[in-house]
Amino acid sequence: MSTEVTPFITPGALLAHWQGHRRLTRKVIEAFPDEKLFAFSVGGMRPFGTLAMEMLTMAVPMVKGIVSGDWGMSNDRDARPKQELLRLWDDTTEQLNRLWPQIPPQRFLETMTAFGQWPGVVHDLILYVIDNEIHHRGQGYVYLRALGIEPPAFFDRS
Amino acid sequence: MSTEVTPFITPGALLAHWQGHRRLTRKVIEAFPDEKLFAFSVGGMRPFGTLAMEMLTMAVPMVKGIVSGDWGMSNDRDARPKQELLRLWDDTTEQLNRLWPQIPPQRFLETMTAFGQWPGVVHDLILYVIDNEIHHRGQGYVYLRALGIEPPAFFDRS
Repeated sequence: MSTEVTPFITPGALLAHWQGHRRLTRKVIEAFPDEKLFAFSVGGMRPFGTLAMEMLTMAVPMVKGIVSGDWGMSNDRDARPKQELLRLWDDTTEQLNRLWPQIPPQRFLETMTAFGQWPGVVHDLILYVIDNEIHHRGQGYVYLRALGIEPPAFFDRS
Repeated sequence: MSTEVTPFITPGALLAHWQGHRRLTRKVIEAFPDEKLFAFSVGGMRPFGTLAMEMLTMAVPMVKGIVSGDWGMSNDRDARPKQELLRLWDDTTEQLNRLWPQIPPQRFLETMTAFGQWPGVVHDLILYVIDNEIHHRGQGYVYLRALGIEPPAFFDRS
């Protein structure tokens, strides 16, 4: 049974949009000096490395839960070398590409309870993860400026 | 002719999602002391009032252009009292609600050139405006923390 609703965006285009954001976030991670990544912040907030680890502990676990109903989640946000963080980032890129087509198309409009705690329409659960990444990456831009480092261009998702 | 593509999200749900973000951004504007809104920033960046004016000069002009092909845009980002900024914010809320249903549903998947300069699929043009708001609002969170002010909860879109 096909729906007759005209989409704002299709699932495939949304994944492409998200991966574009993730390429930009990767550049922000790269822009931090290794010794500042988990040590520097402004206003008593969390360092950018911790925020990037939060993004990783949300992205694949959310999509995996939507695919399978298995809502396991790691809370490991410990400091680690930038190269290890980038390796985890790239692993997540591949896992998202592999998991995404396994989401049954109708599911995006259904309601689920993420991690046994947060009920919502699946598209809103996914947008929350993406929006949280954009939100914290914007904070990373301020940290970089405060360090005297020019952040990557917001509009460039290459 | 109806499309058979299953949506990630429908146009109506996307507007509701955006207006939820806009309610949160409004709370961030409100959280700034009037005398800091256009005067305070971190790392030589633009003050939050200027960023909020940028959001306003993008939102309705983008949707109006998508509806009508009229790509007029104001670049007025001058300082003004918080109450005036909030009034402009609320005007935009109503204008978006009025303009949105005038977008022909198929158009979200078509390509347009926004403001005569930026070609893109219409859903990406709209997401750019929303993502830019989330990005700069995240920066506003850092400014508030640097001022010793607790920002509103990111997850609360009421």
